[in-house]
Amino acid sequence: MKNTIGNNIQVSVFGESHGKAIGCVIDGLAAGIKLDLNYINQQLDLRKPKGKISTQRHEKDELNIVSGYFNGYTTGTPLTIIMENSNTKSKDYEKSKNLMRPSHADYTGYTKYGGYNDYRGGGHFSGRLTAPLVAAGAIAKQILKSKEIYIGSHILSIKELKDESFYDMSESQLRNSISQLEQAYFPVIQKDVGNAMLNEIEKAQIDGDSVGGIIQSCVMNIPAGIGEPMFDSIESILAHNLYSVPAVKGVEFGLGFNFNDFKGSEVNDSFYYDDKKIKTKSNNNGGINGGISNGMPIILQTVIKPTASIYKKQQTIDIEKQQNAELQIDGRHDPAIVHRARVVIDSMIALGILDLCVSRYGYLWMGDK
Amino acid sequence: MKNTIGNNIQVSVFGESHGKAIGCVIDGLAAGIKLDLNYINQQLDLRKPKGKISTQRHEKDELNIVSGYFNGYTTGTPLTIIMENSNTKSKDYEKSKNLMRPSHADYTGYTKYGGYNDYRGGGHFSGRLTAPLVAAGAIAKQILKSKEIYIGSHILSIKELKDESFYDMSESQLRNSISQLEQAYFPVIQKDVGNAMLNEIEKAQIDGDSVGGIIQSCVMNIPAGIGEPMFDSIESILAHNLYSVPAVKGVEFGLGFNFNDFKGSEVNDSFYYDDKKIKTKSNNNGGINGGISNGMPIILQTVIKPTASIYKKQQTIDIEKQQNAELQIDGRHDPAIVHRARVVIDSMIALGILDLCVSRYGYLWMGDK
Amino acid sequence: MKNTIGNNIQVSVFGESHGKAIGCVIDGLAAGIKLDLNYINQQLDLRKPKGKISTQRHEKDELNIVSGYFNGYTTGTPLTIIMENSNTKSKDYEKSKNLMRPSHADYTGYTKYGGYNDYRGGGHFSGRLTAPLVAAGAIAKQILKSKEIYIGSHILSIKELKDESFYDMSESQLRNSISQLEQAYFPVIQKDVGNAMLNEIEKAQIDGDSVGGIIQSCVMNIPAGIGEPMFDSIESILAHNLYSVPAVKGVEFGLGFNFNDFKGSEVNDSFYYDDKKIKTKSNNNGGINGGISNGMPIILQTVIKPTASIYKKQQTIDIEKQQNAELQIDGRHDPAIVHRARVVIDSMIALGILDLCVSRYGYLWMGDK
Amino acid sequence: MKNTIGNNIQVSVFGESHGKAIGCVIDGLAAGIKLDLNYINQQLDLRKPKGKISTQRHEKDELNIVSGYFNGYTTGTPLTIIMENSNTKSKDYEKSKNLMRPSHADYTGYTKYGGYNDYRGGGHFSGRLTAPLVAAGAIAKQILKSKEIYIGSHILSIKELKDESFYDMSESQLRNSISQLEQAYFPVIQKDVGNAMLNEIEKAQIDGDSVGGIIQSCVMNIPAGIGEPMFDSIESILAHNLYSVPAVKGVEFGLGFNFNDFKGSEVNDSFYYDDKKIKTKSNNNGGINGGISNGMPIILQTVIKPTASIYKKQQTIDIEKQQNAELQIDGRHDPAIVHRARVVIDSMIALGILDLCVSRYGYLWMGDK
Repeated sequence: MKNTIGNNIQVSVFGESHGKAIGCVIDGLAAGIKLDLNYINQQLDLRKPKGKISTQRHEKDELNIVSGYFNGYTTGTPLTIIMENSNTKSKDYEKSKNLMRPSHADYTGYTKYGGYNDYRGGGHFSGRLTAPLVAAGAIAKQILKSKEIYIGSHILSIKELKDESFYDMSESQLRNSISQLEQAYFPVIQKDVGNAMLNEIEKAQIDGDSVGGIIQSCVMNIPAGIGEPMFDSIESILAHNLYSVPAVKGVEFGLGFNFNDFKGSEVNDSFYYDDKKIKTKSNNNGGINGGISNGMPIILQTVIKPTASIYKKQQTIDIEKQQNAELQIDGRHDPAIVHRARVVIDSMIALGILDLCVSRYGYLWMGDK
Repeated sequence: MKNTIGNNIQVSVFGESHGKAIGCVIDGLAAGIKLDLNYINQQLDLRKPKGKISTQRHEKDELNIVSGYFNGYTTGTPLTIIMENSNTKSKDYEKSKNLMRPSHADYTGYTKYGGYNDYRGGGHFSGRLTAPLVAAGAIAKQILKSKEIYIGSHILSIKELKDESFYDMSESQLRNSISQLEQAYFPVIQKDVGNAMLNEIEKAQIDGDSVGGIIQSCVMNIPAGIGEPMFDSIESILAHNLYSVPAVKGVEFGLGFNFNDFKGSEVNDSFYYDDKKIKTKSNNNGGINGGISNGMPIILQTVIKPTASIYKKQQTIDIEKQQNAELQIDGRHDPAIVHRARVVIDSMIALGILDLCVSRYGYLWMGDK
Repeated sequence: MKNTIGNNIQVSVFGESHGKAIGCVIDGLAAGIKLDLNYINQQLDLRKPKGKISTQRHEKDELNIVSGYFNGYTTGTPLTIIMENSNTKSKDYEKSKNLMRPSHADYTGYTKYGGYNDYRGGGHFSGRLTAPLVAAGAIAKQILKSKEIYIGSHILSIKELKDESFYDMSESQLRNSISQLEQAYFPVIQKDVGNAMLNEIEKAQIDGDSVGGIIQSCVMNIPAGIGEPMFDSIESILAHNLYSVPAVKGVEFGLGFNFNDFKGSEVNDSFYYDDKKIKTKSNNNGGINGGISNGMPIILQTVIKPTASIYKKQQTIDIEKQQNAELQIDGRHDPAIVHRARVVIDSMIALGILDLCVSRYGYLWMGDK
Repeated sequence: MKNTIGNNIQVSVFGESHGKAIGCVIDGLAAGIKLDLNYINQQLDLRKPKGKISTQRHEKDELNIVSGYFNGYTTGTPLTIIMENSNTKSKDYEKSKNLMRPSHADYTGYTKYGGYNDYRGGGHFSGRLTAPLVAAGAIAKQILKSKEIYIGSHILSIKELKDESFYDMSESQLRNSISQLEQAYFPVIQKDVGNAMLNEIEKAQIDGDSVGGIIQSCVMNIPAGIGEPMFDSIESILAHNLYSVPAVKGVEFGLGFNFNDFKGSEVNDSFYYDDKKIKTKSNNNGGINGGISNGMPIILQTVIKPTASIYKKQQTIDIEKQQNAELQIDGRHDPAIVHRARVVIDSMIALGILDLCVSRYGYLWMGDK
């Protein structure tokens, strides 16, 4: 609990943004999985800040596996990843440590930990802690891929700009899109929409402001029968994982909140035999009935709120002086994190799906060739 | 796991819709809590089908506490609630058991359990299993009330009909609303909107159709500092719990998906001192920063999809004959469950909040007078 | 946690000795297991008090499965067993409720639960709560038997009387013994030793006193590779389970405490190839190396302390009057429970072994025919 | 689970003997605990090999806290300890990697992990992994000490040599002994017995052999009411923890296996009022009734088997050649580990007791001054 997720594949995360190191422990991986380190590094790369639309804090995020890995293969014992913090400018935070940044965890962390928390750069609440999660997620995705289960995400919208939806795609288009998205640093299906989104982010940056966005994700080829009724429904497990990601404030499956606008007869997903295979004509339930996969693609949307750190002047409190105060944030910040969050979302989904698959098929299934 | 939620206050649920009994085990309650059985029964009453807009299956849902309760007080050992199934018409399901109802768990349950699941009335997937959760939730709410933490929900919308939002209320109006909502079988703030919603449901019923809706919930007076960073954020815990409720397909906190439409400067919640008390000017984050409560009301929205069981003819498959088929549902069904779901939503929130409070304040806190 | 054991096969137990009912919930069983109810009842029978050497409280321990079981097969959802308490004489306890019985949980329960515990007959601490565990264990044993994994126990000693040890048996003698022991109400290998033990118990009974004893258990045919290193070693899991049984005060594996008396060269278990099969010449480690099974029989010993309830006059305290007092126990008690505890020990071992097997082979393994 | 113990204070351990690093993550510590690093290092020192009676592998076991610790205090977030492996001689293991050392985890590890385990120096099964547990345990002991709960252990016996038992001591003698034992590298109460034990170990060493021993432990001043009935009894939690320690093959509480030799009337612990305080005249149950502490010292015994690695020639198998073989162990080994294991035993007890206390008193209790 607390800093661990998963039942059979458990991931613990530790570290603070400006401490010595961050990392994670992955427990439950089968022995004998040949890890593709290039793939893990490529996934980590998608999370790194790049170009004008990102913070200028550049961390190497060097993948250092200190246990559970021997001669190129997993050993079956806990696999531990350590990433040192090197490019830290802690002084940026020292001087403003008593000014609680609006919509950040400064105040809640201060209260929860009685002022003993490491406040520098958000400490344990920092988005930086998602780096080891991406490494863990890349391992999960690699295992799922070997079972032909594919996971992909794109930016569905930033403000009024909307990318094509996964719902409007044929199965082969979907498969294709997922492949292409995994290579793209700014993950959209329609290039022109992507360019417009980039403009929107740059505009926010120039204004010392920030934007959020909605990420749409898909899990293809998941067999029917995965997930548990009620408490460990796929929705419960994935939402639990996704809400662990800083800045996520909404998660919906299939039609999600739009279910409000329809009648049952309009949105029920009829089953039919497509040759011998059972499918549904529509997929408004996002591939999940009663918490269990029905064999159709799992589709879900996650909203990322606008980055809380903005350069514009803001009103807040000084917790030491116990009075209202004005805040002008220094430091290095992202005008948007939605594109960098994408691979984190992918990772949290992959960890949840792998865990549910292992619950059903067992530990040894992972290692099958 | 699987059929258990919670870390310190754990609830296990068991049973099938048409089996001998359903029930739950609640573990972790402090000893010496005087239970208000009237309150539990009143809460159960809010979940019961009533009037034209509900199924005609009427179960007594008699509260039978078989353990953990002695001389009017909790004993501190597992408290078990059993509810017998009495008003079952299993034959309704026998004849159509091979016809997989669209958007139901018939097919996924069949696949997961290899055809051994109790298919009658949805079996373990039935909404009926939420009755013991309401009883458990009522106990949690009673404990939270004794700490002046209040939980309430209302129907925010059904199709285009919208009730007043909790966001537009002062603190005292909010407190007032929560009190009134707890008494109301059809929970809305604005009576006229409620009547229009009832019309909409009746219209769906006449058409042999169904509608869904959005429920908005609020937790008042929760102290700052509750919840865990990352994996056991309040959002993770509550979303996990809420997605356990059949028909929930979306959960969002504060502005939720609307965060997509704004810039950081427009939606950041500024802190200020209101006399000695720390508050935020707006509450777009729904009382949660970095997964931890900031002392403002926790506000969230949950979408309930239209009831999957409709009387209109539908296309589906016959799983035994392995061919496409037509389905005309018999049995007794609700044209809407959003009003009945409300108290289930309340209960799942209460169980999550109580668990997080006990993690922080300890087991003995519950029993403090 | 608390009232739940197991990772993949989880068992929760609830109830009080003189409350309405006791029972358990078993979560994680595969669907489609045809339960042998006769076998479960036969196992429950081994736990029942019989003859002169047992309490005169006779409970039917009727097996009432209220969920997770449909048409003779497990459904894969939580299987709940309820046993009503019928033959209760609560008044026996009412009058002496303030007299804390020595070596019983009266005082610790009173303190832990602030006096709110159900004190009648030991309440939740009663040995009666092992009845549902035996039912759960019988299901686990049935599943393990279908995989040719056999579990059996006998009384190794009562005072200076010693039965033959499992260590002195060939593999086929062991297999044979386990079969015979499962049929025997008083489980010993050597009949004459058994008769002497019965005399010892009767002698204690006549004196208003009690005796304990040591139970030796064996798990045959467990494949090598089961168990986890360190924290979830077979020893950790089985000891955790066994120490849940009232009156157990010691658990040792293989040579156990006698390892103190030897040098490494005398007790190391040498590996050798017996044809193609890997075996050890001796089995001083009781089939477990580094927490993991090595394919040899798992052998362990558990000590049961003398029944705490004796008719002899004892010194104790009156918790209400807060003064020293004399106690003359009424009620119905066993002069020995070691023979009745045997099947509980078997059950707790079976639940642990099944859980570890499912961790390795997966949920679907249970259902394989 | 698997590589994590604890409910509220959770410890995960990772690493292999000859990998890059070993370490642990401790989750659930309160914020604001000022850590005494000297004390942790002093405890680590007690585990280090020293003198003739130990392996010549000398690791610095440098305490490197990489997270959860800021400005001298715990932050409340996961505290991670990393210890690099430096003095490794992996080649010693390379050449004999196919020779399964008797009574070691070589064969079981090979089987469990399909040959992918890091075999060097026992890999994840190595006693070396207890170093981070000692660091974690030292933190737990420090917290318990601040509540005046003291834990101490000594070598009760090696072969026929027996130290004085904790049972023969007055409360003040016990308190005194615990203080002195914590300073002693070879922990015995009677110096002359200690010298005889050292001789026994040296004799074994000269013979290329090894010895084991029995450790007796005590927890003083634990309040009554700690622990849970049945599944999370103090005995269950402590035995689970202790059996995680390599070479432990038996755990007993109070009289333990000697309960076999007595009648109830001889060993029941009578309660009495000592002034206002409730005590028992004897303490045969080792301070635990019904799984819950009764306020008397918790006393338990743990047996450590003779070190499996001996220099004497042994028979075994070559797993690659699939034939019987002779083994002459090289490398650096301990003729006894019972004295070094002592602080590991202390640590595992401390972690269990702290966890149970936090379950009862809550997270914030730890930080109280």
